[in-house]
This record gives sequence, structure tokens and C-alpha cells, in this order.
Amino acid sequence: MKYSFKNDYAEGAHPKVLEALLQTNKDQQSGYGLDDYSLAAKAIIKQKINNPKSTVDFVSGGTQANLIAISSFLRPHESVVAAATGHIFTNESGAIESTGHKVHAVETENGKIRPEDIQTVIEGHQNKPHQVKQKLVYISNSTEVGTIYLKDELRNLYDYCQRNNLYLFVDGARLGHALTAETNNLTLEDFGKYTDAFYLGGTKNGALIGEAIVINNENLQEDFGFHLKQKGALLAKGRLLGIQFQELLKDDLYFDLAKHANQQAMKIKKAFREISHDFLTETFTNQIFPMLSHSQIEQLSQNFDFYVWKKLDQDQAAIRIITSWATEDYVVEQFINEIKNLK
Amino acid sequence: MKYSFKNDYAEGAHPKVLEALLQTNKDQQSGYGLDDYSLAAKAIIKQKINNPKSTVDFVSGGTQANLIAISSFLRPHESVVAAATGHIFTNESGAIESTGHKVHAVETENGKIRPEDIQTVIEGHQNKPHQVKQKLVYISNSTEVGTIYLKDELRNLYDYCQRNNLYLFVDGARLGHALTAETNNLTLEDFGKYTDAFYLGGTKNGALIGEAIVINNENLQEDFGFHLKQKGALLAKGRLLGIQFQELLKDDLYFDLAKHANQQAMKIKKAFREISHDFLTETFTNQIFPMLSHSQIEQLSQNFDFYVWKKLDQDQAAIRIITSWATEDYVVEQFINEIKNLK
Amino acid sequence: MKYSFKNDYAEGAHPKVLEALLQTNKDQQSGYGLDDYSLAAKAIIKQKINNPKSTVDFVSGGTQANLIAISSFLRPHESVVAAATGHIFTNESGAIESTGHKVHAVETENGKIRPEDIQTVIEGHQNKPHQVKQKLVYISNSTEVGTIYLKDELRNLYDYCQRNNLYLFVDGARLGHALTAETNNLTLEDFGKYTDAFYLGGTKNGALIGEAIVINNENLQEDFGFHLKQKGALLAKGRLLGIQFQELLKDDLYFDLAKHANQQAMKIKKAFREISHDFLTETFTNQIFPMLSHSQIEQLSQNFDFYVWKKLDQDQAAIRIITSWATEDYVVEQFINEIKNLK
Amino acid sequence: MKYSFKNDYAEGAHPKVLEALLQTNKDQQSGYGLDDYSLAAKAIIKQKINNPKSTVDFVSGGTQANLIAISSFLRPHESVVAAATGHIFTNESGAIESTGHKVHAVETENGKIRPEDIQTVIEGHQNKPHQVKQKLVYISNSTEVGTIYLKDELRNLYDYCQRNNLYLFVDGARLGHALTAETNNLTLEDFGKYTDAFYLGGTKNGALIGEAIVINNENLQEDFGFHLKQKGALLAKGRLLGIQFQELLKDDLYFDLAKHANQQAMKIKKAFREISHDFLTETFTNQIFPMLSHSQIEQLSQNFDFYVWKKLDQDQAAIRIITSWATEDYVVEQFINEIKNLK
Repeated sequence: MKYSFKNDYAEGAHPKVLEALLQTNKDQQSGYGLDDYSLAAKAIIKQKINNPKSTVDFVSGGTQANLIAISSFLRPHESVVAAATGHIFTNESGAIESTGHKVHAVETENGKIRPEDIQTVIEGHQNKPHQVKQKLVYISNSTEVGTIYLKDELRNLYDYCQRNNLYLFVDGARLGHALTAETNNLTLEDFGKYTDAFYLGGTKNGALIGEAIVINNENLQEDFGFHLKQKGALLAKGRLLGIQFQELLKDDLYFDLAKHANQQAMKIKKAFREISHDFLTETFTNQIFPMLSHSQIEQLSQNFDFYVWKKLDQDQAAIRIITSWATEDYVVEQFINEIKNLK
Repeated sequence: MKYSFKNDYAEGAHPKVLEALLQTNKDQQSGYGLDDYSLAAKAIIKQKINNPKSTVDFVSGGTQANLIAISSFLRPHESVVAAATGHIFTNESGAIESTGHKVHAVETENGKIRPEDIQTVIEGHQNKPHQVKQKLVYISNSTEVGTIYLKDELRNLYDYCQRNNLYLFVDGARLGHALTAETNNLTLEDFGKYTDAFYLGGTKNGALIGEAIVINNENLQEDFGFHLKQKGALLAKGRLLGIQFQELLKDDLYFDLAKHANQQAMKIKKAFREISHDFLTETFTNQIFPMLSHSQIEQLSQNFDFYVWKKLDQDQAAIRIITSWATEDYVVEQFINEIKNLK
Repeated sequence: MKYSFKNDYAEGAHPKVLEALLQTNKDQQSGYGLDDYSLAAKAIIKQKINNPKSTVDFVSGGTQANLIAISSFLRPHESVVAAATGHIFTNESGAIESTGHKVHAVETENGKIRPEDIQTVIEGHQNKPHQVKQKLVYISNSTEVGTIYLKDELRNLYDYCQRNNLYLFVDGARLGHALTAETNNLTLEDFGKYTDAFYLGGTKNGALIGEAIVINNENLQEDFGFHLKQKGALLAKGRLLGIQFQELLKDDLYFDLAKHANQQAMKIKKAFREISHDFLTETFTNQIFPMLSHSQIEQLSQNFDFYVWKKLDQDQAAIRIITSWATEDYVVEQFINEIKNLK
Repeated sequence: MKYSFKNDYAEGAHPKVLEALLQTNKDQQSGYGLDDYSLAAKAIIKQKINNPKSTVDFVSGGTQANLIAISSFLRPHESVVAAATGHIFTNESGAIESTGHKVHAVETENGKIRPEDIQTVIEGHQNKPHQVKQKLVYISNSTEVGTIYLKDELRNLYDYCQRNNLYLFVDGARLGHALTAETNNLTLEDFGKYTDAFYLGGTKNGALIGEAIVINNENLQEDFGFHLKQKGALLAKGRLLGIQFQELLKDDLYFDLAKHANQQAMKIKKAFREISHDFLTETFTNQIFPMLSHSQIEQLSQNFDFYVWKKLDQDQAAIRIITSWATEDYVVEQFINEIKNLK
């Protein structure tokens, strides 16, 4: 079977995570997130973001995190502004609209939203109450095209949102990868400070399942548990989520794994660069999008699996290569060898 | 710490399930339920229910299973009939209503719905279109009060539903316990035959998480995957669900575990009976509801945890004792000893 | 054709209302409720309830008023407590549930809810967040069975709601009839004081269509216009609603019409009483529910139309007689004659 | 006060419509659309579209018509394709999304959708079930920018929809204006043939309120009444809608009024053309969008009211002039005089 660079969730969990599940298996624990492990994991996260007033809740996946957070924050007439590449706009089967809220898509150059993009949407919706009211800005970090927000960018967005009575919510399915990218200058603490809420992804970074929803804005915290339950996200054995996050975060395993994934991607990026290939976006995380000729793509797919991301013209397309915590050195070396042999 | 009989999800997973997770951990697999393990587990279930045209999908929990199945089956104006004790009516934080559908509650003697109960609801809603249209009957087996449906009862319900253009949906969070109860005369195959859809619960019977939604009615199968995705139930690492169900079902471990839970409960029931205590409902599954005096409850709770289920009068209350696949013999013996010592 | 006592919306509008539509027909006016007539009508209502901080908005019908008000007031996990006879529970085709909210039905003796009824619901939903959160109490005045709330009753309910962090919302489809009943001791002003919101019905009291939603609680007023628009209630020619309410309310025509309807019903009630018939509920508004033998019902239906409301036993049933602003004296006299001739 | 060309709903109803309301006012009629007038009006419409199997229902406004039709036709995971100028996308405060459905916006040149536009959306959503399923195409005729569909265009769209398992739904708020435009080659009958459903607007063409929803596709007709009720659209005095449509349609008054509106607009268009002004879109209905300099706009707004529709550059903007059944000749002449005097 070919080795797959199609996604970062092809394997199970990091061995330490499984080991923790084994070690704790026979303990009797309270259900629904009130187990000792979940409580401990929540405390660790609150400490790491240095915001004791934040709340933390665990859910099983990213779409679930997005739909529950957003639908609990908004009133029925309020809408969301997102990049056209945003996961909620394109790849969650209308989950946000299914909870009743419109998502406005903003075309971007690199998957990142700027205050002026939001401003344009707001200015185009001044015929009240005939046009929906924008209330939440959704960004992803790292984005769906592998890019990351810098400190100034996040702060400017948050300031803009504060001034315009908007919530800023960050989809952090790959927040670990963003925070460990070589160009990054943000910290987890900044996300406790410059967002109303965000989630920290486990599924794509060493866990079997699990995302941690962090709500910083105290006005948005009330009764959040009801929303988890009502949307089917409150696991009876919430320990499954708590144990994993505790293990990933207690000694920074989470960040080590993300850094590893990034480094593997950067090695591959360098190999492509050396044979002078261009990229769809310039990324420093675990996703790269080299532009190749169709015959090169054909050649590479003999032994490796990946997505053809975007057809560029008759000759060329961009492919997507994703690495993960589980991508081993020898595989990367094999792949680099094949890249070197590309005509 | 006291031993808890409060629920059947206090421990992790059966060791064989964890072992299977370990063994398969490094395989690269497709995401979102297309992994080999999920495909194999689906095949096993279809074989066991002897209905090759049924579809099987795995989700993480019971509320999620109920809300996705029901909301995908119904049009906006259609409603659900359930027992007043039904999980969807009382304990899912309005999850069904949240998807837009009314739930009609029927008072029952033992948690079980009869055709005449449904008929009464329908007859009370003849002022069309001012009153909602009943379209789905929700039952649980075993019920929330530990009772089970017999073959004639299920068949009669299904016949009634067929004749009245209603769907019959079974919440099988504890279907294993129902099917291995000593008084049971139904088989898993019957659920492939006499229901439109049902789910088979893993969380309460040896899995970390996981319920298998089985749709027998072919008209209800179309596009079900979109609903899983839209409601946030499609796990990236769907393997987590597939592996567990494969392990539980390939050699009937699932039924052995449920039978074990039932037997432990029956031993405890016998002990209560011997000191001549009465029960709220007569059950043969892993839930029993003995009626005790307040001082007896006090006495028992010195060393054991359980819920006081229902206050009966000034002197008495019914408690709920739940056993599980993880309830060990020595604990049961200790508990029985305490029961024998009750005044 | 038989004369119909089946409902209070069988005729068009009071002639003065039609006349006002004719007189204003050619004026050019702003759309969507910003016309001069709507503004004037809103001012009149605010003056009559003596609460300058209240807001007033007009919609076309009662179900629309209920669903928009309730869905705009509540967050997704919040539920409504209503009488089992409440219009939203039985006769609006699941409109409230369609917006995502559960309605808890309380059995009552006379269609009226008491604080202790609400308390029972709340006490039965303490397993948070597994059970929905009660947040709004819905009452009707006059009720669906013709009864009315007295001043103490309304004040006690409101006090209870205030203490328990609940909203009190009144369906006033027949508020005119309640306020002009001979036993009434409430004023329109009281509804501006002892409720969070209510609506004042036009359709059943002289208008072609139209209900006025009044929101007293300032926290519930924000952005209400968006909800009107989003739910399809914002009429382009909002003048249609404004003109009617202006005409009905400027000189108390509204109350005169309701009083007329009540008086006609009371005459009929007296006639039934004189031949010693009993009533399902004791009412002083425009709905009466005499209990008759089947042969008497047969006899009366020769020349008059009405609903058989409830079968009581093999011999008897309660019928519903509704009068309206349009019920003329000669019809009442004819009907009374027939009553007198009943065996 | 200035004369307003801002919209086509500034006045009340055509005098004949009011007269009909007066004439029928005292008849006792059944409620909720079962009155004789509604039944007669439905019969007339079915006859005019020459499709006896179609169903007709009346609602009060366009947003209501759109949201009820679309939400009753679609399952939860299905989405709508519309022009970016489409009323449901921009001006209904998220009403469609509020019922759970995503609306995909297509950029167009003239407000009209072509099969290739839909094809592009479908091709961009092939990652099933992660991306929503397109199921309904929404078009307006005349469009929001005054243009109309020709016979070939409508037929091609319908054929495309049929082949791709999509519904074609037409927002006919101004269908009368489209069908009486000088360039039009479609008939009302064509809309009974080449659409799955459409609505025929009354509010903007002589009625006080009212839109007639026509469903041709028999699969979409079942239980439609429940949706009308559940969404608050079923008027107790449905006669109000029936009487108006009966009056408008029995002798083609409806088409005469629309033609009048178009003609008034064409006179004004000609006047602009003569002083060599350009238009944003070339229209033949009751909306025209001349491009003027800011000083010309200033000059015209001395005595007339209209919307500045779109800023074009530093010097120019397009204004929108709307005429209606109520626009009288003398006003048009006055306005034309002012146009002639523009510098």
C-alpha cells in the first residue's frame, strides 16, 4: 500500500496517549466531563493560556466544536464572517447554516481575513433589518491553506472586533501547528487574550479524537453545557477526552508533536524548492501546496498518496502534502528522493 | 472511595477493545468512516441482523444517534411519539426539539409504549394542519426503567406503525442488555426486521464511545452521511468506532458483556427480594429499582454510591442500582452482604 | 346557510376599519412598519399601557406573534412552560418546537397556570445540563377555554417569574374580551407592568388581520425587527396593520367591540342556565361551553353551526359557542329561542 | 411632500380590490383559506396556468413565501443556488438560513442565472458528504435588477434542473411586470410547466398583501398546509387573501396593472435615454436604473424621492426608479419635465 500524505489523521493516537488510556481504564469516574482527568486537563489549559476566568470544554471533533460554539454564541438573526476557504463555509456540509446562521464568505489571498474584509461585509449590510447582522468573525489558525496569523494580525482583528461589537472565534484544529511554525510569533496565551473563544485541536495532533473549546468572553460562557448536551456532544465517558488532553498537554507533548509535523513538511518543502517548484501559498506549517506538472504528479503518485488540490492550467496543478506527528523520517527521506528524481 | 452503582459508564473500555486499538494504531487508514475496521464492523452487523439492505453508521453517543436519525427521517412538520420516561423526552436537553420536532409524551406503566397509546395521540391531533403530524414512534429497549419489549409487543408496534404510516425507531443504548435478559425472546435479527431503524449501543457495553445506527427502511437511507457530517458526528478518525465495534461483535463479546451485567444485577435483585423488598418496576436487565426505607438507603450509601430515583412517600424511596460489564463478583458479594444486614 | 358560532373570525372587519383603509388608500407611505399610521398606532398603545419604554410591533396573526416573540427571547437551550390547553402547545402545528424550543405542558383545571404548576416543572428538571432550562412562561388571556386571569393571579405569576429568572409572555389573541369581561379586574396598563411581553389581538376583535406585540422588558427589545423580517412577518405595506390598530384603539372601539361580543355570549349563557344546563368551564368572555345531551346538540345544529368541543360520556358533550363583535342581536335572540325549546 | 419612486408598495390597494373587500365583508366564511373566495381564486389561477394538478396557497408576503416554500421542499442537508442579487441572499435577513439551508450565491451580469452558473457550484461541491448537496435553484422574474427571463432561458434552466435532480423555484414578487414587459415571450402557463413551484406576487401589483404560491411538482405538494401553519402564515381570515386575488385575476386586472407600471417606467426611461443617459441594466419592467452625475441626482431629488442604488465612480451613480399600478400620468409628466431640464 502507498504511504499517504492525504491528511493528518490517518493513524491512531500517539503511543503515550494510548498508554494513558490503558493506565486509567479501571478507575471509576463521573460521567459527562466531570471526571478527574477532564478537570485536570481543563486546569492545565487555563494555566497555559494564563486566563483563570476562561472556561474549557472538550468535544469530539472540529465541526462539532464550530457548530456548538457558534450557535451558542449567536442570536437567531446574527451571522458569521469567514474566509471563502474557511472550513465552516466549504467543508462542514452547511453545519452552521443548519443551526440557522448565515455565513458570509470573504475572498482572500492566503486564507487570512483582515479587518478591511470584514468592514466590506458590514458596509454591504446596512439595510436593517432586511439584511442580517454580522456578529462573529471566524478565522482558522493555521488556515485551511496552511498559512498562519502573526501577532499584529490577530491583535488588529481582535481590536477591530471589539470596536465593532463582534466576537472573534478561532478554529484551532491545527493551532499546535500554527504555534510551532518557524515564522510564528504568537503564543497560546495570546489566544486567551485576543479572542472571545477558540478551540485547540487534538484529533490532528496526536489524539484519537478531541478538541478543547476555550471561552474567554465571560458573557459567552453561561449555560454552555446545555448546548454541548443538546447537540449530542457530551460524551458519557468524557474521560476519553480528558485523559488525552491531559497527556498531550501536561509536558508539552502537544507542541512537540506539532513541531515534528511542521519539520517534516519543511524538509519536503525544501526538496521541492530545490528543484525550483513554486507553491500555491507560502506555508510554514504541516501543509504544503507545491505546483507540479501533471506528469510529475503522475510520477509522484506511483508510491505516495496525496490530494490534487487545484488545477492551475492545462499543464499544472497544485497538490497538497500533509505531514503529522506520525510521519516518520524514513518516509520523508523516501519521498524526498522521489522529488529529486522528478523531471 | 465508594464503589459506584450510579451508572454503566464509570469505567473505560473492555481490555480487548483497548488491545485492538493498540494493535491497529499505526495503520494508515481513510478518514470519516471509510477505514477497513469500520467497513468490517458494518459487515458484521448487517450479517447479524440478517438484512443485507440495511445501512450501518457509527456515531459517538446516544443523544447524537437519536437527534441525527430522527431529524434526518422527518420533514419539518412531523412529530415523535415517545414514553414520558423516554430519554429523548426527559434527558437530552431538548435535542429533538432543537432540530425542530415536537415530542409527544405518553404516560406508561413500565416505560413501554403500546399501539393504543400512539392511537390516543393521533386521535387527539386530527385538526389538520393546525396540529402537528405524528410520524415517528420512539421506543427504548431496554427502557429507561430497565424493562424490555417482548417479541409480540415489538411486532404489534411495528405492524401498527406500518398500517398508520409511522416509522418505528428504537433507542438501543442498552439493547445488548435487553437481548440477554432471561425473560427476553427477541433477537438482533428481529430488530433488522421489525423496525425502520435502531441503534446498538457501545458506550454502555464495553466501548469507550460508540453507537451503531442501523437503518432498515431503504427510504430513510438516502444521503444519511450528510446528516452525520452536518451535525458534527463524522469523526475524522472513524476507525476509533469501527475498531471497537469490530472487537465487540466479531465473537459475541458484546453479548457476553451484557449478560454479565444482567447477571450481576439479578444477584443483587435476589438479595433484595430475599429480605422481602419490593421494586418500582420488575426488571431483568442491568438496572434494578428496589424500594427502601430512608434509613436503609442511608445505611447502604455508607459504602456504595447510587441514585435515589424516586421518593415514594415519607418513609420510602426507590433507588437505582446499575451494573455493567465491569462489575466484578467481589463487589457484588460485598454489596449483597450489606443488603443482608439491612434492618 | 346556517349561522355559525364556530369562531370569532368568520366575518371581515368592523366597517370603521374598512372605512379607514379606504380613506388612507392613496397616501404614499414608507414600507415595513415605518408608515405614519403604524407610528401613530404604536404611540397610542404605549400611552394606553402607560409604559413609554415598551416597544410595539405589528404582525399578521397569533401563531406568528407567538413564534417570533418566543424564538427571539430565548437562547437555544431554553424552554417554555404552558398550559396543556395552550394554543402554542396544541394548535400551532409545532411552531415553537420548529424554532428549536421545547414546550412543557401543564395540566390545569381551567386553562390557567399557577406558580406551583411552574414550580413542579422546574423541580422535575434539575439534572442540568441533561434537562432543558425553563425560561419563559406562556399564558393566554382570555384562555383557550374562555377563562380570565384576575389581578392577583397575574401579579403572583409575574412575581414568581421575576424571582425565578423567567419571562412572562401573554398571548392576547382575545385580550380585549378578557379586559371587558364582567368579572375582570385587570387593565391594559397592568399588562404593561406585570408581563415581560404580550400581544394584543386584532384578528378576533374587528380587524382583518393584525396583532400588536408589546415588549416591556428592555432586555428583550434589542434587534426585534430582524426577527420580524427573518420570519417573514414584516409586511411591505405595514400600513395595513397600522391603520387598523389606529382605528380600533383611538376611541376605544376595540374595547366596545370586545364588550359587545362578551355580552352576546352572556345572554346565551343565561339562556342555557335557565333551562339548567351546566358548563365545562365557568366563563365570562365570548366563549361558552355548555354541556348538552346528544339529542339537544342535534336539535341546535339544525339551524346553527358550532363545534362539539369534548365528549363527556355516552349521553353528553360540551359544545363551544363563540360570539364576536359581529354577532347581531337578532341572531342571538333566534338562538336563545331555540335553546328555550330544547328538551 | 415629494413624490416617491422608491418602491412599488407605497400606496394601498387598487380601488377594485378595496371595493371587493367591502362587498364581501359581512359574509360568514370558513377560516384558514377554506373560504369561498380563496377557493375561487385558487381555481382561477389553476385555470390560468393550465395545470389542474398544481396546488395554490396564499400567504401574506414574499419573504414568507420564499422561506415556507423552500424549507418545505428541502431536506436538512440540501442547499439553494441563487444569484448574488437574489432577494433571499441579500434582503431577507437570513430567512432561508434560519430554516437551516445554505444559499450559494452566483455572481451574474444581469441578475439572471444560467445553467453553467449552477454547474460551477455543483462541481465545486463534490466532496460528499463534507459539502452540502445542491437541490433547489431560486430565480426571480422579473429580477431584483429589473431584467426578465426569456422562454428559452427558462426552459433551458428547467431542463438542466430536471437532468440534475434539482428543483426550480421562481420568486414572482413582480411576475406580473415580467409577463407584461414588451420584450417578454413567456406566459403564466409556462410557469405552470417549466418550474417546480413559483409564486405570483400581489403586494407589488395592486393588493394590500398577498402572494400566491403555486406548486406544480406533485412530490412537493404533500402536507404543504402544515408548513403554512407552522411558520405562522395561515391567516384566520384567509378571505383577505382570496378576495384580493379573485378580484385581481378574474378579469386580468392583475396584468393591466403591471402593464401600466411598466409603461410608466418606459416613458421615464425614454426621457433619460433622450438626454443620452446610460443604464446599469437594460430593463423593460417597472424598475429602471439610470446612471447620473451626482449633481443631476441632487437636482432630481429636489422634488422626487428615489434610491441611489450604486455608486459607480467619483462622478456618477445609478439611481433606481420604480413605478407601480398607482403611478399616475401627471406625475410621470412632471418627472419627465425635470429630466429634460437636467444639465
